[in-house]
Amino acid sequence: MSRISYINGLYKKHYEASVHLEDRGNQFADGVYEVIPVRFSKLIDCNLHLERLFKNINSLKIDFNLSNKTLKFIFERLIYLNKIKDGIIYLQVSRGVAKRDHAFPDFSIPTIFVTSRNQKLDKKLLQNGVKVVTTKDLRWAKCDIKTISLLPNVLAKQEAYENNAYEALLVDDESFINEGSSSNFWIVKDNIIYTGPITNKVLPGITRKVLKEIINIEKMKFKEERFKLEDAYEASEAMLTNSSNVIIPVVKINNKKIGSGIPGNIVNKLYNLIEKNIFNQINM
Amino acid sequence: MSRISYINGLYKKHYEASVHLEDRGNQFADGVYEVIPVRFSKLIDCNLHLERLFKNINSLKIDFNLSNKTLKFIFERLIYLNKIKDGIIYLQVSRGVAKRDHAFPDFSIPTIFVTSRNQKLDKKLLQNGVKVVTTKDLRWAKCDIKTISLLPNVLAKQEAYENNAYEALLVDDESFINEGSSSNFWIVKDNIIYTGPITNKVLPGITRKVLKEIINIEKMKFKEERFKLEDAYEASEAMLTNSSNVIIPVVKINNKKIGSGIPGNIVNKLYNLIEKNIFNQINM
Repeated sequence: MSRISYINGLYKKHYEASVHLEDRGNQFADGVYEVIPVRFSKLIDCNLHLERLFKNINSLKIDFNLSNKTLKFIFERLIYLNKIKDGIIYLQVSRGVAKRDHAFPDFSIPTIFVTSRNQKLDKKLLQNGVKVVTTKDLRWAKCDIKTISLLPNVLAKQEAYENNAYEALLVDDESFINEGSSSNFWIVKDNIIYTGPITNKVLPGITRKVLKEIINIEKMKFKEERFKLEDAYEASEAMLTNSSNVIIPVVKINNKKIGSGIPGNIVNKLYNLIEKNIFNQINM
Repeated sequence: MSRISYINGLYKKHYEASVHLEDRGNQFADGVYEVIPVRFSKLIDCNLHLERLFKNINSLKIDFNLSNKTLKFIFERLIYLNKIKDGIIYLQVSRGVAKRDHAFPDFSIPTIFVTSRNQKLDKKLLQNGVKVVTTKDLRWAKCDIKTISLLPNVLAKQEAYENNAYEALLVDDESFINEGSSSNFWIVKDNIIYTGPITNKVLPGITRKVLKEIINIEKMKFKEERFKLEDAYEASEAMLTNSSNVIIPVVKINNKKIGSGIPGNIVNKLYNLIEKNIFNQINM
C-alpha cells in the first residue's frame, strides 16, 4: 500500500502530494513546522507541540485556525493508514499560495500538510554517544520561532557530516554555545546540569521543556545559564535533545573527549526518566 | 489560454505546476533563485543573472548543470507562450526531493522551475519617488547568496507596508544601512553617488553592477562606501535599485524628507542612462 500524506483537506498518495510552485513556503520559507514523536503508535507531547505551533503561527501572523482536535485526528489517521509504530509526524503550515511578492498577500489560504514515517530510536547512539563539531552561528535573529527558513541549519548540519560528526554546535562570536543545528545542547559540570536560557538564538525545544520539568521534580541540580565552548570542554557529560531522538549523549566535541569519553551516569539517568515519562503517556 | 510555467523538463499549466511536499526548497529553503527582467519581450542582462545563479548554486553545492543556452531557450519559450512583453522571468533551483533530513541527501535530482509574468514598470514610482522606513537587519550571515531563505526579508517588507512605506531599509547595530529587503540602496551627497560595498549583508545586485559600470563610463563621482542612517538623512537624493523595478527614487526615510522631497537630477540621470542601456540590449 502507498504511504499516505495529508494536504489541505485531502489524504493523498505521498509520492503525488505536492504544493503549488508559488506556495509561499516554497518561494519565501514563509511558514512554520513541528515534528511530533510517535511511540507505540501514540502521539507524544502532542499538546505541547501544538501550543508551540500556534505561538509560531501567531508570530508570523498566518491566519490559520484548525482546532487541536482536528489536527490530532489527522495525525492519528496518518498513524493508522501508514502503520506508524515508532516514528514521527511532520506538520508544516505556510502562508499559502499567492502571486510572488515579498509582503503578505491581501488574501491567501494557508497551506497545511502532514507527513509521517516510521523511524526507530537509534539505540547505538545512546549507547556509544556521538561526536559533535562547532561552527559559527550564522542564523537570523529569530531562531526562537520554529520556521522553515532552515538553510543555515542545513549548511551547519552538512558541515558536521563532512567532519564525521553527528551534529554541529552553533557558537556565537563570544564563544557561547547557542544550540545544535537541530537540537538543544546541555552539559553536566560538577554534577550540575546546564542548558542555555531561551533567547532569540535558542529554540524552545519540547524535549528541553519536558526535561526541565523532570529535573525539577527529581530535585536534580540544574542551572539555566549560557556557557562557553571552554566550559563544554571541561564538562563531565554532555548531550543533545530533540523530539526525534529524545536524548543523545555527546562524548566528543571537536576531537576533545568529554569526561571519560563514554555516556555518563547523569545523561543516562535523564534518558531513563524521560523514557518513563513517554511510557506513562502511552499507557494513559 | 492558460499561463504556462516550466518545471523539471515539462511545460505545464501554471495553476497545476507544483513541487513535491518534500522538495528541499519547500521544507528547508534549500535553494536559490533569480528574477530576470523582460522588456519588449527580450531578456535583459540575462548572462549576468545566470553567472550569479551558478555562483550561488556552487556556494550551496547543488549539483545542477543545465547550460545557459538551454536555460535561455526555456525563458524565451515562456516569454512566447505567455506573451510576456514587459515583465519578469522567475527561476528557482532547489536541491530536489529527498526524505526529510537536514544534511544534504546522498542523491537527489535538483528541482528547477521557471515562471513568467507581465509586469510593467510603475512610472508613478519614478515620477513621485517613494517613502521607505528603517528596521533592524535580522537576516543571516550570508545575504550575499541569493537564496530562498527569505522569511526575514518578507517580515521586513511587511513592516514597511504596514507603515505605508514602499521598502524597508535594513540597518545594523551601528546604524549602517546594509540594503533594502529586496533592493540595493544608494544616496547622493555633495554630488557624489554612494552605495555600500558587497559584504555578507549586501546582495550583489545586477542592476547595482550595471549601474556602477555606467557611472564609471560617464565619469560621475562615485564612492563604494558604507554609510549610516544619519548620512542618508542628510543626502540630497536617494534611490533603490533592483531587477524588477530598475531604479526607484526615495524621497522620504522614516518621515524625514530627503533633499527637496522630490526625485533629484542625478537619480533621474541614472535612470535615463540605465534605460538607454536596456534599450541598446533590446535593439541588439
